[in-house]
Order: sequence, then structure tokens, then C-alpha cells
Amino acid sequence: MQVDEPVRLPRLSRAAVCGGTHGNELSGVYLVREMLKPENRKEDGGPASLLMLLSNPRAVQQCTRYVDTDLNRCFTHATLNGPASEGAPYEIFRARELNNLLGPKGSRAAVDLICDLHNTTANMGLCFIAYSDCDWVCLHIFRHLQKQMPDTPMRFIHFDVSTKESYSLDSIGKHGFAMEIGPQPHGCIKSNIYTAMREGVQHMRDWVSCFNSGESNVSMAQLPRHNQMTDYPCFLSQDRDFCLLRPGEPLFQTFSGETVKYQGAEALYAFFINECAYYKKGIALSLARKRRVSVPSIRVQTDEEERASEQSFASEEEE
Amino acid sequence: MQVDEPVRLPRLSRAAVCGGTHGNELSGVYLVREMLKPENRKEDGGPASLLMLLSNPRAVQQCTRYVDTDLNRCFTHATLNGPASEGAPYEIFRARELNNLLGPKGSRAAVDLICDLHNTTANMGLCFIAYSDCDWVCLHIFRHLQKQMPDTPMRFIHFDVSTKESYSLDSIGKHGFAMEIGPQPHGCIKSNIYTAMREGVQHMRDWVSCFNSGESNVSMAQLPRHNQMTDYPCFLSQDRDFCLLRPGEPLFQTFSGETVKYQGAEALYAFFINECAYYKKGIALSLARKRRVSVPSIRVQTDEEERASEQSFASEEEE
Repeated sequence: MQVDEPVRLPRLSRAAVCGGTHGNELSGVYLVREMLKPENRKEDGGPASLLMLLSNPRAVQQCTRYVDTDLNRCFTHATLNGPASEGAPYEIFRARELNNLLGPKGSRAAVDLICDLHNTTANMGLCFIAYSDCDWVCLHIFRHLQKQMPDTPMRFIHFDVSTKESYSLDSIGKHGFAMEIGPQPHGCIKSNIYTAMREGVQHMRDWVSCFNSGESNVSMAQLPRHNQMTDYPCFLSQDRDFCLLRPGEPLFQTFSGETVKYQGAEALYAFFINECAYYKKGIALSLARKRRVSVPSIRVQTDEEERASEQSFASEEEE
Repeated sequence: MQVDEPVRLPRLSRAAVCGGTHGNELSGVYLVREMLKPENRKEDGGPASLLMLLSNPRAVQQCTRYVDTDLNRCFTHATLNGPASEGAPYEIFRARELNNLLGPKGSRAAVDLICDLHNTTANMGLCFIAYSDCDWVCLHIFRHLQKQMPDTPMRFIHFDVSTKESYSLDSIGKHGFAMEIGPQPHGCIKSNIYTAMREGVQHMRDWVSCFNSGESNVSMAQLPRHNQMTDYPCFLSQDRDFCLLRPGEPLFQTFSGETVKYQGAEALYAFFINECAYYKKGIALSLARKRRVSVPSIRVQTDEEERASEQSFASEEEE
């Protein structure tokens, strides 16, 4: 592939912006409600069809992360397609509803792009979280936001999980990512965090519109690769998300005041430090390697190319 | 009263430190658990009897503010002494239990001092919240902490409510205050906030020990007086707790991005800005006047004085 030859990709005709997948992460809840107001639904050059929805309305109503089980872990192939008994958790039913509406996951009928809005108590700035490190659409959107919002710290986090095992709402679109912004306490809304999300979503819509109109881009993006560790919840490294943690550096402070050092053999980047919702899971922080990836320029397919790729998609499905 | 003649006050023989009155305010929960460990229960010169307890163990277990109703609103005379039906909220029963253990409120049997530990999502530093602006014990403890922890922003907030109407746990002691520290998301623990609380409680114990041993002090303290207002939850003034808010200054930002100005006629100090637990109540922030009060020096009573004041207390109770 030559650098000056853009990759041709299908038009992004249908996109979805979802808030309230976790009902107490309020920036997305309020932003979706705001976008749903009739006066804000005017055509502004975004994707031909933009769906906005609250993913977990019951949890939103109760201002809680979820009612029975974490909705954003219910989008694996197994959970979406397994048998569902009468007494199954509410979120399992809701995940299937959403899969019917926005998916089905992995099918040609799925929406082209899902942007799922999240907040974290960690000091993470604005992050894209995605399962692929070669989804050029997501990476180009990310680069566009980086350029448009130079004062907002921004990272692209790649969770290295297969499509089948991918469990989050954004995995049911053809392209998808979570937009995770913090720090913001759950159940609270902070104007700077809300504003960053609103701007981020607007820039994403602008980019999609631009892409659909036929423009192309060349880019580079940084992707820390994901990894996990577990420990107890009192941090020296609090608020230092995406700072490099070197072996032997102070990591935790115990409740009696002692310091516990990082025992790893490799210097890594810490993130999701002190995310409230991960206490139950015993996850104090996540650790990542930093990688630099090259992103090719892309351009929307011509109608003819699109027809050809649809035919190849159809024959893949038949296999 | 002469400046150089200390006010004589009874010995503080029994004190209580309470955490988890709100079950998701974790600094107090973890601090009380830490203090309850056998290795930390050694006599360290504090009050002769120091009781440490988790006020709302069910809410702590669920990591929620409360189970049925806010425990810290249940300590009015009416709620403590009214009829209790079988189906009454759990917290009503628990409030009565605590009143038996630490009170009864307003009686001679009540503990001498209650320090109730709280967290807030607001950027309030360390605050004492009390119902009296002339409780010299609380004010001296506050001044002692201010001196010992000069790098911690500290304020004394006076809620102007009568003893009968006072509703919080600390109101059932002879002296009492809430120690409120933030910002910390509910359900989370931050090492700087936890450490400030641990130091604050230790300095309080040191002061009580010192007072009981016969030392005296002269002090001045600042008390903002309390007042309330209601509005919607997206703030320009976020994190600017205890900054002066002048008429016409920007106060809120709406979800569509407009600025709403402060309409009050008087410049006041804002606090509890964006406290998560007050969303339901429609309280966006509180407003206070700042006052300076003179605090007389105090000294513990001699045994003889104590007997005399006990007699006068007894005769008051008989009236």
C-alpha cells in the first residue's frame, strides 16, 4: 500500500451516540437528553442518520451503574445469542433489544458507527477505548479530536480482545468506541467534563460528515496497549493516569500509612487509577504499554466500489 | 468575663468517632476500621474512653448513602422519641440504637464529644459542621487542627438550627461536630483525603488529652454562617468552594452552554458546590456569610467544680 493511495472505506450512513450505558455516568446521560431536544435535532451535516439513545433507562432512572448486572459486559456473542430464561437479569434483555436496534453484532445490518459515552472517576482526560488497533475510522476520528481540542489530554486505549469476546455496547456496530472522560464522580456532573464530551461528539459528527463528503486524511496515532492488575484501594499514584510507572516506584499507600512499591519488571503506563466502579472487582488500576501506530489515509468508497464490497460481504456471510 | 480568666468546662471523659453514617463516604469507613484493629487500640493519651463505630453498617455493606432513609437526618427529638411502627425505615431503628448507645440526646448520660466523619464530592477541604457558634470545645479543637495542619484548607460551618431541630448524629453528644472532607467521589477513597482525616482525628484526640490534663488556650476562629439555595446541576463555579460569589457573577452553565448569573443581592461564600448526594434534593450549592468570632480560653474543671456543675445539671433536669 502506498502512502499517497488512500484506503477506500464504505460510507458511514448510520451512526449512534449512546449515553447512560452506565446509569450514573451523567455526562452522557445529560448530553443525549440535550441532543434529543427537538430544537437540537436539526440537520447539521452529520451522518445521514444519527440515532441517539439512553442505553440503560432503568439504571439512569435510579442513578446507578446497573440494575441487575453490568450492561456493558453483555454484548458477547455468547450472551446475545444464548438461551434467555424468564428470570434473567434485566440487562441481558436490554442488551438483546439494543442488539436488535443497532446490530445484530457482526452483521451487515449493524449501524456503521457507535460512540458510547462514559465517565470515570480516574483522572484520564478524554479516552477512546476500542477493541481494534487497525480500525482506521475510529483512529481518524480520534486524530481529528486531538487536533480540534489541543488543550484536552487525549489517549487511544486498545483492549486486545477478539470480536467474539468483545463485551461492550460499541462492539455491535461496524465501527465503535467508548468515549471515556474523567475525572467526574459518578452521580455528579462537572461542567468542564460535560463540555469536553459535547465538543468531542460534535467534532466526531463533523468528521463523519467530512468523510462522507469525500475528503481524505493521513495520520499517526498513539495506542497504549492494555493489561490489568489488582490491588488495594489507596493510591500514591492517584490522579497520575498515563504517567510512566517504573519498577520500585511508590504505588500504594496502605490505610496505616505505609508505602507499597510497584513490583513489576517493566515500566508501564497506569490508567483507570481509582475508578470507583472497579472496587468491587478488586481492580485498583490498569497498566498499559505505549505504542505508536501508522494510520493510512482513507477515503469514502465510490458507489461502484460500495456495490462491489457489499457483494464480497454477502459472499463472506454465506461461507 | 476577663480575657485572661479561662472558662472552666467539664472533663471530656467519653468521646466517640463515627464513620459510615453515610455508607458510601469511604474515608471514615476505612479510618474507623483501621482504628478498630487491635494493634491500633493501644492507649495513646486520648480521652479516657474512646468509642469507635460504624454508624450505618448495612449502608456500608452496600456501599450506598443509606438503605431506606438518610440516617443523618434521623436525630431530631421528634424522630428519636416518636412512635415507631414495625415497618419503619431501618435507619429510624438504627438512630434509636445509636441514641441509646451515645445519648440519650440532651441528657447527662450522653457522651461528651462526637466526631462524625463525612466526605463530600465538593472541593471543600476539611470542614467542621456544627449547630453552635459558641461551643468552645468544638471551636478549640478546630483551631488546634488549623494550627497543626497549616497546608489543609479548613473552615468551620455553623448551621443555625436549634438543638431540638438538629438532625445529625453529632447532635446527640454534649459536644459534637461533623468532620467533612472533600473532594472525594462517593464509593471511592483518595489517599490525600484519607490522610487528612486520619491526621485530623489524631490531632483531635491529642487536643482532648491536653485539655483533660489541664492546659488552656486563647483563640479566634472564623465561622461562615449557613444558608441555602437551589438550582440546576452544571456549574461554572465548580471546585471554587468558599470563594466569594458577587451579584452578577457567572454561577451556572446550562447543558446547551449558556451562562446563568448569580441573582442574589448580597455577595456570599458558596460551598457544597456540586455535592452528588444533594442532586435529589435539588440543592446545587449552599451559600454562607463569613463571620469572625472570639473564642475565650478554656480549662478543664477541677473535681470540686465538676461536682458543683453536676448538681446544677441535675436540678435543671428535674425542672
